[in-house]
Amino acid sequence: MTQKISAAIVGYGNLGKSVEKLIAKQPDMELYGIFSRRDSLETDAAVYPVAEAAEHKDKVDLLFLCLGSATDIPEQAASFAENFTTVDTYDNHHLIPAHREKMDAAAKAGGTVAMISTGWDPGMFSINRTIGEALFPNAQQNTFWGPGLSQGHSDAVRRVEGVKAGVQYTLPKEEALQAAKEGRGDEITGANAHRRRVVAVADEADQERIRQEIVSMPDYFEPYETTVEFVSQEVFDREHQGMPHGGHVITSGDLGGTHSSVEFTLELERNPDFTAASQLAYGRAAVRMAREGRTGAVTVLEVAPYLLSTASLDELVARDI
Amino acid sequence: MTQKISAAIVGYGNLGKSVEKLIAKQPDMELYGIFSRRDSLETDAAVYPVAEAAEHKDKVDLLFLCLGSATDIPEQAASFAENFTTVDTYDNHHLIPAHREKMDAAAKAGGTVAMISTGWDPGMFSINRTIGEALFPNAQQNTFWGPGLSQGHSDAVRRVEGVKAGVQYTLPKEEALQAAKEGRGDEITGANAHRRRVVAVADEADQERIRQEIVSMPDYFEPYETTVEFVSQEVFDREHQGMPHGGHVITSGDLGGTHSSVEFTLELERNPDFTAASQLAYGRAAVRMAREGRTGAVTVLEVAPYLLSTASLDELVARDI
Repeated sequence: MTQKISAAIVGYGNLGKSVEKLIAKQPDMELYGIFSRRDSLETDAAVYPVAEAAEHKDKVDLLFLCLGSATDIPEQAASFAENFTTVDTYDNHHLIPAHREKMDAAAKAGGTVAMISTGWDPGMFSINRTIGEALFPNAQQNTFWGPGLSQGHSDAVRRVEGVKAGVQYTLPKEEALQAAKEGRGDEITGANAHRRRVVAVADEADQERIRQEIVSMPDYFEPYETTVEFVSQEVFDREHQGMPHGGHVITSGDLGGTHSSVEFTLELERNPDFTAASQLAYGRAAVRMAREGRTGAVTVLEVAPYLLSTASLDELVARDI
Repeated sequence: MTQKISAAIVGYGNLGKSVEKLIAKQPDMELYGIFSRRDSLETDAAVYPVAEAAEHKDKVDLLFLCLGSATDIPEQAASFAENFTTVDTYDNHHLIPAHREKMDAAAKAGGTVAMISTGWDPGMFSINRTIGEALFPNAQQNTFWGPGLSQGHSDAVRRVEGVKAGVQYTLPKEEALQAAKEGRGDEITGANAHRRRVVAVADEADQERIRQEIVSMPDYFEPYETTVEFVSQEVFDREHQGMPHGGHVITSGDLGGTHSSVEFTLELERNPDFTAASQLAYGRAAVRMAREGRTGAVTVLEVAPYLLSTASLDELVARDI
């Protein structure tokens, strides 16, 4: 690395906090500060008003956009890309082409790089889907999510009357994973690929009714195989406050009379920490590409693996190949 | 794709034959012919004398070097790279930097691209080691091989007196895989990461002696956990003539107080078919990079994922991200 990457963060929720703690562990990055709407944040880092972010552009090599995909990224990301090399985790899959177009125009106008849609899905899973599919003349490909906490389904559980606390974990079914590896993909449907595990706190008198309401809730839980476990508030507080997630991308196919499969698996104790780790590595790549003169939007599919590493290409060739 | 890639093969062993059958399944490639020392091969493809290969350089976009790593690649690869954009599967790990240097000089002199050390290890495993390691501030990383046929160990089995037929499968141990995922890498050693399964044919009177000779053979089998199964010649011929292989690259680590793991797994019914599939995808990337004006040696670490695909970047962004 020629010089340390001066990095800033905008957005200080779960993701921004994870990025902050991981920047501190990078040998080639230092945290310039956090841009926020709020006057003070619970951090030792410098905090600057987000409205004045552009004034800092000459001191920042890389801006982590740790903003929500629902409204913040669509509304704000392009204006940041005009001033900073950025890296985001925009995850609204079917709107990524539109996001890319907008970020490309902004980054080209600003002479910056906008690395878009990093994280794990999109992100790590995207590159594995592309690479896996490229290996087989007629690839069969399946993505499975979990075991992991689903925010939307957890909210649905908590809306059921009598539920004092509740979470929902989505788990891939073993038999579906096996079918994918063996190329029996036609057996896999949305409903039989995953099962749903609900853990809730409720009075004993309500439990059977709650279980019935949950398992019969259309779309959310019906027709999925759903189990509902009731635990004490104490157990719930101790064991079900995390944000575990993960998943699998499985690609298989025929290679001229023989069958092979390629599988990429993530097991994440805390979803935002890993999303941040991926965002960080792709942020490093964005800066390196910007230093080589690249401008515009860049997707993870366009990033050569060595650009993610703190090691030089020569070191990697000597070590990892 | 602007025009079909005109591809040729040099070397017509297991790998060359696999490449030939997979080229036939690519929408963007056609087989120009095979360069060989022999006058005739069992193929419908055009066969040309390898000594005259250079005369065909203007008609060939990509030359698959399907030659052995022991002597053929070191002796011959550079002279091919002077005339053709090449892709090889050179797998002598600690000599790859030297191979790269030699191929780089040859390819730059010839104005070609030399894509080196594709396949799965090196190759697919290399990119997964690099990407995995880049995600964690203090990555713990382990590579496991198998379940798969080991040629060297099978040869050692067959040298034992009284063995009429024999193969050896290397298998990763489940507990070592689990330890790697959980970050207990210090518990993993060479000897406890894998176990060895020998399947052999021998007269019953010889079996106990053979078993003892095998399990006590230093380095090859001792101190590994080794099982020796005797089967009939008939069962051997039916069930143990394949070339299965595969393996795992597991990277795990702490992400600021939480633990995550990333795993890449291959299950291959036939080793050379998958090696060929990877060589093919990286060959495609070599041609695309050459058409963009790149020259010299290129490692898999330098290849952006989208370059492996027959689909355009825009299609991939719309589909896979």
